[in-house]
Amino acid sequence: MEELAKVLGRSIREKRKERGFSQDGFALVAGIDRSYMGRIERGEVNITVEKLYRLAAVLSCEPASLLPSVDHFIG
Amino acid sequence: MEELAKVLGRSIREKRKERGFSQDGFALVAGIDRSYMGRIERGEVNITVEKLYRLAAVLSCEPASLLPSVDHFIG
Repeated sequence: MEELAKVLGRSIREKRKERGFSQDGFALVAGIDRSYMGRIERGEVNITVEKLYRLAAVLSCEPASLLPSVDHFIG
Repeated sequence: MEELAKVLGRSIREKRKERGFSQDGFALVAGIDRSYMGRIERGEVNITVEKLYRLAAVLSCEPASLLPSVDHFIG
Protein backbone atom coordinates (compact mmCIF):
# COMPACT_ATOMS: atom_id res chain seq x y z
CA MET A 1 0.00 0.00 0.00
CA GLU A 2 1.38 3.36 -1.02
CA GLU A 3 1.05 6.34 1.22
CA LEU A 4 -1.85 8.68 0.47
CA ALA A 5 0.23 11.87 0.55
CA LYS A 6 2.63 10.42 -2.04
CA VAL A 7 -0.12 9.42 -4.44
CA LEU A 8 -1.88 12.76 -4.02
CA GLY A 9 1.38 14.68 -4.50
CA ARG A 10 2.05 12.81 -7.73
CA SER A 11 -1.47 13.51 -8.93
CA ILE A 12 -0.98 17.25 -8.25
CA ARG A 13 2.40 17.24 -10.00
CA GLU A 14 0.98 15.50 -13.10
CA LYS A 15 -1.89 17.96 -13.40
CA ARG A 16 0.46 20.90 -12.84
CA LYS A 17 2.71 19.72 -15.70
CA GLU A 18 -0.33 19.12 -17.93
CA ARG A 19 -1.22 22.78 -17.35
CA GLY A 20 2.30 23.87 -18.30
CA PHE A 21 3.19 25.34 -14.91
CA SER A 22 6.69 25.18 -13.47
CA GLN A 23 6.69 24.22 -9.80
CA ASP A 24 7.79 27.74 -8.84
CA GLY A 25 5.19 29.42 -11.05
CA PHE A 26 2.47 27.19 -9.66
CA ALA A 27 3.53 27.93 -6.08
CA LEU A 28 3.49 31.66 -6.80
CA VAL A 29 -0.01 31.66 -8.33
CA ALA A 30 -1.35 29.42 -5.57
CA GLY A 31 0.18 31.65 -2.90
CA ILE A 32 2.11 28.78 -1.36
CA ASP A 33 5.75 28.87 -0.36
CA ARG A 34 7.71 27.11 -3.11
CA SER A 35 9.67 24.84 -0.80
CA TYR A 36 6.37 23.81 0.78
CA MET A 37 5.00 23.12 -2.70
CA GLY A 38 7.93 20.79 -3.32
CA ARG A 39 7.09 18.96 -0.11
CA ILE A 40 3.44 18.65 -1.17
CA GLU A 41 4.41 17.13 -4.53
CA ARG A 42 6.83 14.72 -2.88
CA GLY A 43 4.11 13.63 -0.46
CA GLU A 44 6.01 14.80 2.61
CA VAL A 45 3.11 16.78 4.01
CA ASN A 46 -0.52 16.03 4.61
CA ILE A 47 -2.46 18.98 3.21
CA THR A 48 -5.84 20.26 4.31
CA VAL A 49 -8.95 19.98 2.17
CA GLU A 50 -8.97 23.77 1.93
CA LYS A 51 -5.48 23.77 0.39
CA LEU A 52 -6.56 21.03 -2.00
CA TYR A 53 -9.33 23.36 -3.24
CA ARG A 54 -6.89 26.23 -3.65
CA LEU A 55 -4.52 24.09 -5.73
CA ALA A 56 -7.40 22.68 -7.80
CA ALA A 57 -8.65 26.22 -8.51
CA VAL A 58 -5.25 27.19 -9.95
CA LEU A 59 -5.19 23.93 -11.93
CA SER A 60 -8.76 24.53 -13.20
CA CYS A 61 -9.95 21.12 -12.11
CA GLU A 62 -12.30 19.59 -9.59
CA PRO A 63 -10.60 18.95 -6.23
CA ALA A 64 -12.18 15.48 -6.22
CA SER A 65 -10.39 14.66 -9.49
CA LEU A 66 -7.02 14.95 -7.73
CA LEU A 67 -7.89 12.39 -5.08
CA PRO A 68 -6.85 8.79 -5.63
CA SER A 69 -9.64 6.23 -5.33
CA VAL A 70 -9.63 4.12 -2.17
CA ASP A 71 -9.21 1.11 -4.49
CA HIS A 72 -5.67 2.37 -4.96
CA PHE A 73 -4.92 1.49 -1.34
CA ILE A 74 -6.48 -1.97 -1.24
CA GLY A 75 -4.80 -5.25 -2.04
CA MET B 1 -20.55 31.81 -1.23
CA GLU B 2 -20.71 29.30 1.57
CA GLU B 3 -17.61 28.27 3.42
CA LEU B 4 -16.00 25.02 2.27
CA ALA B 5 -15.65 23.54 5.77
CA LYS B 6 -19.38 24.05 6.41
CA VAL B 7 -20.45 22.37 3.19
CA LEU B 8 -18.02 19.49 3.73
CA GLY B 9 -19.15 19.08 7.34
CA ARG B 10 -22.76 18.87 6.25
CA SER B 11 -21.87 16.33 3.60
CA ILE B 12 -20.11 14.17 6.22
CA ARG B 13 -23.06 14.48 8.61
CA GLU B 14 -25.57 13.46 5.92
CA LYS B 15 -23.56 10.38 4.94
CA ARG B 16 -23.06 9.47 8.60
CA LYS B 17 -26.82 9.57 9.20
CA GLU B 18 -27.47 7.58 6.01
CA ARG B 19 -25.21 4.90 7.47
CA GLY B 20 -27.14 4.92 10.75
CA PHE B 21 -24.25 6.11 12.91
CA SER B 22 -24.74 8.38 15.90
CA GLN B 23 -22.16 11.14 16.05
CA ASP B 24 -20.55 9.53 19.08
CA GLY B 25 -20.49 6.06 17.53
CA PHE B 26 -19.00 7.44 14.35
CA ALA B 27 -16.30 9.33 16.28
CA LEU B 28 -15.44 6.17 18.22
CA VAL B 29 -15.08 3.96 15.14
CA ALA B 30 -13.11 6.66 13.29
CA GLY B 31 -10.82 7.13 16.29
CA ILE B 32 -11.55 10.83 16.49
CA ASP B 33 -12.36 12.73 19.64
CA ARG B 34 -16.13 13.21 19.73
CA SER B 35 -16.04 16.93 20.44
CA TYR B 36 -13.66 17.30 17.50
CA MET B 37 -16.11 15.31 15.36
CA GLY B 38 -18.83 17.78 16.29
CA ARG B 39 -16.58 20.62 15.18
CA ILE B 40 -15.89 18.85 11.87
CA GLU B 41 -19.61 18.43 11.17
CA ARG B 42 -20.31 22.05 12.06
CA GLY B 43 -17.54 23.17 9.72
CA GLU B 44 -15.50 24.78 12.45
CA VAL B 45 -12.28 23.02 11.50
CA ASN B 46 -10.45 22.52 8.27
CA ILE B 47 -9.57 18.81 8.11
CA THR B 48 -6.65 17.21 6.31
CA VAL B 49 -7.07 15.01 3.26
CA GLU B 50 -5.80 12.10 5.36
CA LYS B 51 -8.61 12.58 7.87
CA LEU B 52 -11.11 12.80 5.01
CA TYR B 53 -9.94 9.34 3.88
CA ARG B 54 -10.28 7.96 7.39
CA LEU B 55 -13.85 9.24 7.70
CA ALA B 56 -14.74 8.00 4.21
CA ALA B 57 -13.39 4.53 5.07
CA VAL B 58 -15.72 4.31 8.09
CA LEU B 59 -18.59 5.58 5.93
CA SER B 60 -17.76 3.07 3.16
CA CYS B 61 -17.66 5.72 0.48
CA GLU B 62 -15.15 7.38 -1.81
CA PRO B 63 -13.47 10.39 -0.19
CA ALA B 64 -14.09 12.31 -3.42
CA SER B 65 -17.84 11.74 -3.04
CA LEU B 66 -17.85 13.83 0.16
CA LEU B 67 -16.30 16.87 -1.51
CA PRO B 68 -18.59 19.59 -2.80
CA SER B 69 -18.07 20.55 -6.44
CA VAL B 70 -16.35 23.87 -7.06
CA ASP B 71 -19.58 24.91 -8.85
CA HIS B 72 -21.06 25.08 -5.37
CA PHE B 73 -18.83 28.06 -4.60
CA ILE B 74 -19.37 30.03 -7.79
CA GLY B 75 -22.05 32.59 -8.47
